[in-house]
Amino acid sequence: MLEEFTIPAVSEALRARVLAAIDAKTKPPGSLGRIETLALQLALAQGRAAPDASAALLLCAADHGLVAEGVSAWPSEVTLQMVLNFMAGGAAANVFARSVGASIRILDCGIASAPPDHPALSRAGIRAGARNALRQDALTADEVAAALDFGARAAVAEVEKGAGIVALGEMGIGNTSSGALLAHAVAGLPLDGLTGAGAGLDEAGVARKLKVLRAVAARRPGRLSPFDALRAFGGLEIAAMAGALIGASSARAAVLVDGYIATAAALVALEARPEAAAHVIFAHRSAEAGHDLMLDRLGAAPLLDLGLRLGEGSGALLALPLLKAAAAMLAEMATFESAGISGKEG
Amino acid sequence: MLEEFTIPAVSEALRARVLAAIDAKTKPPGSLGRIETLALQLALAQGRAAPDASAALLLCAADHGLVAEGVSAWPSEVTLQMVLNFMAGGAAANVFARSVGASIRILDCGIASAPPDHPALSRAGIRAGARNALRQDALTADEVAAALDFGARAAVAEVEKGAGIVALGEMGIGNTSSGALLAHAVAGLPLDGLTGAGAGLDEAGVARKLKVLRAVAARRPGRLSPFDALRAFGGLEIAAMAGALIGASSARAAVLVDGYIATAAALVALEARPEAAAHVIFAHRSAEAGHDLMLDRLGAAPLLDLGLRLGEGSGALLALPLLKAAAAMLAEMATFESAGISGKEG
Repeated sequence: MLEEFTIPAVSEALRARVLAAIDAKTKPPGSLGRIETLALQLALAQGRAAPDASAALLLCAADHGLVAEGVSAWPSEVTLQMVLNFMAGGAAANVFARSVGASIRILDCGIASAPPDHPALSRAGIRAGARNALRQDALTADEVAAALDFGARAAVAEVEKGAGIVALGEMGIGNTSSGALLAHAVAGLPLDGLTGAGAGLDEAGVARKLKVLRAVAARRPGRLSPFDALRAFGGLEIAAMAGALIGASSARAAVLVDGYIATAAALVALEARPEAAAHVIFAHRSAEAGHDLMLDRLGAAPLLDLGLRLGEGSGALLALPLLKAAAAMLAEMATFESAGISGKEG
Repeated sequence: MLEEFTIPAVSEALRARVLAAIDAKTKPPGSLGRIETLALQLALAQGRAAPDASAALLLCAADHGLVAEGVSAWPSEVTLQMVLNFMAGGAAANVFARSVGASIRILDCGIASAPPDHPALSRAGIRAGARNALRQDALTADEVAAALDFGARAAVAEVEKGAGIVALGEMGIGNTSSGALLAHAVAGLPLDGLTGAGAGLDEAGVARKLKVLRAVAARRPGRLSPFDALRAFGGLEIAAMAGALIGASSARAAVLVDGYIATAAALVALEARPEAAAHVIFAHRSAEAGHDLMLDRLGAAPLLDLGLRLGEGSGALLALPLLKAAAAMLAEMATFESAGISGKEG
């Protein structure tokens, strides 16, 4: 399934061409900082000197049986309620998407209760939530493969509809637990450093969550391969995001990764497909404890650091205007020659 | 002149009302981090619960006689050439303004050679560039007052045309020298820490610049009052930005401050009018050495840190979408009650 999504190599000729184009623009060399490196990355990811910054957010939702063990401050039904909020256009993701000019596709990757039909909704039809990972593996190998494939196909579909950037966001009560377990098992990061307040646990709640996560990790100890880790700990929305990263990269889009959970998905995807790294842009440094550890492991420096800890792709959407500005710089900015501007002295 | 621009006090009743509105939105409390504090600041600056995020960039241009002493890597005529580039729409400021939906007004605060008429240009008509501050005061007290007044009136005019946010950017070959001297004289910051490469000096050039700046500062030693410092060191565009900050605040707009030079203008303006601080939002941490010192003195944490060192309001424009998202959050996001979402457990 996932094997068909091969990722093209970056063109070194294109790199030289785009770097020369950036240096010809009417500004001191390098003075646009990360906007210049973003412009180059977009061009190389898309394989064209004039990259396209139209963006689609894949909002990947699913539930987690582990919530029964008290790992979240919120009940599982909030996943569906927030998906209904996405459909009604009232969530932060909707507001920000309208504000920055991105489209949203909601992926029901495995919500416990199915939402009604909606033009912006696609359904995976795999299963209604991951199993309780404290008792048994959260998913089967087939379920992981199906969720990866669902995400990859959804990403390719958005690129085929015109998106040059696929943004990854999520909604799933309990999914910081899966994120922490995945980063622990795939990257060997310490579970206590990865375990935070999620959507609002107090200090005692974080201690309880860490105790549960240690017990879950003990059921499947040691380093795990990326897809085996998804099987052990879920969730369906994280597998779909990992698949979407690979699918979007194969279709020559850039991938804009939101916060903690989306970064856990990126860790998994890049462990399986390191050649996708050239496509991946990290949007926001989450206030959730442990995101720093994942970012450091990936050598990633996110574009924004605004203290967000919401998910929903909110950080990715807020970073999108920087990508749009970078693409516009390449497309529209004058050159020293075209504008008739004097060079540096001496 | 400037006395007529009085700045209204912040409403504590409005603060309580906006904080309650933010906490009712469908998200864990505080989970939108700085977007929440930005929304509150915009509301308080504008004195309304539903702030307006339409923005005008005042692009303040002028020349500096001190360039004759070799403090810049670029010749003075580049100021005019870049203003012509702004008029033609090809500069980074134009590209970013179109990308984020801001208007631009170009203020000729004192360019050495006058640009031709243009619908987006306003002229101060004070003088064609500041004098060489190594030899004499760069401006007279009347010229400083006229430039402050010109900037204040230009800002109020943009607010009257509908801007809720006035962004401050600049163009002026040699103006990092004035910025360093102002921060040194007004805030007592060390000149060597404030002196950087500007638009592209090499190491020897920075050493030469620092030597010149030390000689200029020795002509007018010690701490100076803000407007006397403008007189001593210029420049006309920095005085206009300081006036614009005060004028925009008096007209109940938020003020979005770009990088190094605009922050030096803010230092001057806030020393004269500390009550404007509630209106001021710092956009970007410049890569120019010394900006950190100014920001620390102001207790400011800019929204972005992208390695830019261009000026032109480029950092302010790139930060604008965050302000737009914050305003949209207040105006459009659903509440728990309106969306029928369950509360936290326990």
